Amino acid sequence: MKRAYNFAAGPATLPTSVLETAQAELLDYHNTGMSIMEMSHRGKIFDAVYKDSIERLKRQAGVPERFDILYMTGGASTQFALVPMNFSQAGRTAGYADTGAWSKKAIEQATLQKVKVHNVASSADRNHSYIPARLDFNADLDYAHLTSNNTIFGTQWQTLPDPGKTKLVIDMSSDFLSRPIDWQHVGMVYAGTQKNAGPSGLTVVVIDREYYAREHEDTPTMFRYSTFAENESMFNTPPTFQIYLFGLILKWLEEQGGLTGIAKHNAAKAKLVYDVIDEYPDFYIGHAERESRSLMNITWNFKNKDHESAFLKGSQERNMDGLKGHRSVGGMRASVYNAMPLAGCEALAQYMRDFVKANA
Amino acid sequence: MKRAYNFAAGPATLPTSVLETAQAELLDYHNTGMSIMEMSHRGKIFDAVYKDSIERLKRQAGVPERFDILYMTGGASTQFALVPMNFSQAGRTAGYADTGAWSKKAIEQATLQKVKVHNVASSADRNHSYIPARLDFNADLDYAHLTSNNTIFGTQWQTLPDPGKTKLVIDMSSDFLSRPIDWQHVGMVYAGTQKNAGPSGLTVVVIDREYYAREHEDTPTMFRYSTFAENESMFNTPPTFQIYLFGLILKWLEEQGGLTGIAKHNAAKAKLVYDVIDEYPDFYIGHAERESRSLMNITWNFKNKDHESAFLKGSQERNMDGLKGHRSVGGMRASVYNAMPLAGCEALAQYMRDFVKANA
Repeated sequence: MKRAYNFAAGPATLPTSVLETAQAELLDYHNTGMSIMEMSHRGKIFDAVYKDSIERLKRQAGVPERFDILYMTGGASTQFALVPMNFSQAGRTAGYADTGAWSKKAIEQATLQKVKVHNVASSADRNHSYIPARLDFNADLDYAHLTSNNTIFGTQWQTLPDPGKTKLVIDMSSDFLSRPIDWQHVGMVYAGTQKNAGPSGLTVVVIDREYYAREHEDTPTMFRYSTFAENESMFNTPPTFQIYLFGLILKWLEEQGGLTGIAKHNAAKAKLVYDVIDEYPDFYIGHAERESRSLMNITWNFKNKDHESAFLKGSQERNMDGLKGHRSVGGMRASVYNAMPLAGCEALAQYMRDFVKANA
Repeated sequence: MKRAYNFAAGPATLPTSVLETAQAELLDYHNTGMSIMEMSHRGKIFDAVYKDSIERLKRQAGVPERFDILYMTGGASTQFALVPMNFSQAGRTAGYADTGAWSKKAIEQATLQKVKVHNVASSADRNHSYIPARLDFNADLDYAHLTSNNTIFGTQWQTLPDPGKTKLVIDMSSDFLSRPIDWQHVGMVYAGTQKNAGPSGLTVVVIDREYYAREHEDTPTMFRYSTFAENESMFNTPPTFQIYLFGLILKWLEEQGGLTGIAKHNAAKAKLVYDVIDEYPDFYIGHAERESRSLMNITWNFKNKDHESAFLKGSQERNMDGLKGHRSVGGMRASVYNAMPLAGCEALAQYMRDFVKANA
C-alpha cells in the first residue's frame, strides 16, 4: 500500500497510525461486535469515548475551568453566523480583524445580522500577506474576532493580541492543536476539525460559560451554545465517528509531546520549506511576509509563472499531492498540518531545490 | 470477529459489506495513497464520489426534476428551525401533524420563530400509539409538516396524505430509503442519515427549487437552502466521509432490489416480530395500533413489567443489543432498519417465543 504526501489545505492528511486504529476497529469496536459508528450516542461505550476526548482536550490544551467544550457541526462558516447571533445584537458593535478571505466571511455574517463591525485591523492593502501589528480595540466591543491562521494567504498570528476591555473570539480552524493556546484574553475558540483534528464534519468550540447569558430567547434551540453545553453536545445525535477520531488524534498528539512538542515539530517542518524559498529569492517568491509566516500553510509563487504547471506535474510524479495554490494567491501552497511527517517536508524541500537546478 | 445484532434506534447497524469496503479503502482510496477522509472536497476524486451519490439517489428514489438534493449537517433538529425560517415568516401559518416527540420539537421551533402553528392532527390523546386518519389542512398553510416514522412510539404513516393547496415537508429521518417515496404532494424531505443511510453527521435534504424564492435576505448564509443548492453543498467543507458512506449505502441498496426490494424485505422482517406480539397478547403488549405499525421501530411492553430486565439480560446473552425501549413508552424497542438482516429478526422472534415459554 502506498501513502502519498498530501499537502491539501483541508480535508488534509491524518496520522497513519490513527487511520490504522480506525481501520482495525471499524467493524468491531473493542469486542462489542459493532462499529463505533453503529452505536447509540447515549450508550455507555460511546459516552466513555466522548468523555475521554473532552478530558484529553482539557488536559492537552490547558483549558481553564471557565470554559466548556462543545461538539457542533456546520464548520467555521456556521460559527460566523452563530457568534454575532449569540454574543451581540442588531445595533451593537463587535470588532473584527480582516486578515483574509475567512475573516471577510465572518464580517459579512455579522453585518447581515445588523451588528456594527468595528475594523480592528486589515491587511487588505497588500493582498493579506501580513498580520497587522497596529490594532485598534478602542470601542465598546461585544467581542473581538480574529482568524488565527489564514489558510489561503499563509499568514498566522504569532501571538494573540490583548483586546483591552473585550475578549477574543478566534477562528482557529486551520491551526487548532498545532501549538499551545494562551487563554488569557480568549472568550471563545472554534475550529472545524478537517485540518489538524480529524476529517470534516465536526466543529470543536471552547467557550467561556459567561456568554450563555447573552443569548436571545427567540434564537432557535440548535443555534444556541447553551443547548450544546446543557446536553453534553447531545441535544440531538452528534457526529459520533468524528468525535471518536478526534479522541484518537488527541491520543496521537500525546505521543508527539503534546502541543509544545507538536509546535516544535511544526516549526522544524515549515523551516525546511521556507529555507528553500529564502535560498532562491530569484526563483521562488514567498507570499507571506517573514514575521507573519504560517507554520501550517506555506504559499509561494514562481518568478517565472510558466514553472507552475511543470512544478505541479513533477510533484505528482514524486507522490506529492494537493500543492496547487488558491486562486487568490496563485502559485503553490503546501499545507503542512500536524500529521504531515517531517519526511514529507524534506521531500518537498528537496524537490524544490532540484526543480531550481533543473529550471534556473 | 463477532458481529452483534444491533437493534439500537440510531446511530444504528450498517450493512456489513459497506463497512468492509470502507475498512479496506480506509488508508488508500482507489490507489491514491490517501483516505477518502483526507482528500480535498474540491478535488476530482471526491467530486466523482459526490456526483455519483447524487445520481444514485435520484435514480433509486425516482426524485422528480423539480427537486435539488442537498447535503447538510445538524440533523433533523436543525431542520426544525430552518424550515420555518426559510419557508414562512412571523405571523404566517404552517400546518403540523403532531404524532410524537419529534413532531413536537418541530412545532416548538416554528413557534419560537412566531410562525402560527395550525394543528393538522394529533395522536397525543393515546400516547402517540397511532397515525391519525382525520387530517385538517383547511387553512392557508405555507407548508404542512409530517414526521413519517415515529422512532420512539413505533408508528409510521402508511401512505402520505394529500395536503390540499399546500405541500408536505417531511421529516423522514427514521424511514428514509426504507420504501419508495410518493413525491406527488411533497415539497421537501429531510433525513439525518444515522438510521438507514449511514453514520450520524449528514443530513440529506430533497427540496423543490421553488422554495428558494421564499428565503429572507437577512438569513445567515449557512441557514439558507439556496446556499447549498448553488454550491453543490460545498459552500464550505461538507462531511466528506459521510457522503462517501452514503454512496456506498446507495450501491448496497441497489443489490437489495432498490427501494421496492428493501421495502418488501423490511415488511418481512418486521412481520416476524409483530407475529410474536400478536401470538401472545397476554404476554406482550404492542404499543402501536396495528394499522399504524412502523416497519422500522417495533415497540412493546410486557403485561408483567417484571419481565423487562430479565428479557434485556437474556437478549445480551444471545448477542442482541439496543433493545431497551425509550422512557416515553417503556418496555422494548427493536429498531429493524434496512441493514438489520432477516436473521436478526428471526433470532429476536425466536428469543421472544422462548422467553414466553420460560416465563409464562
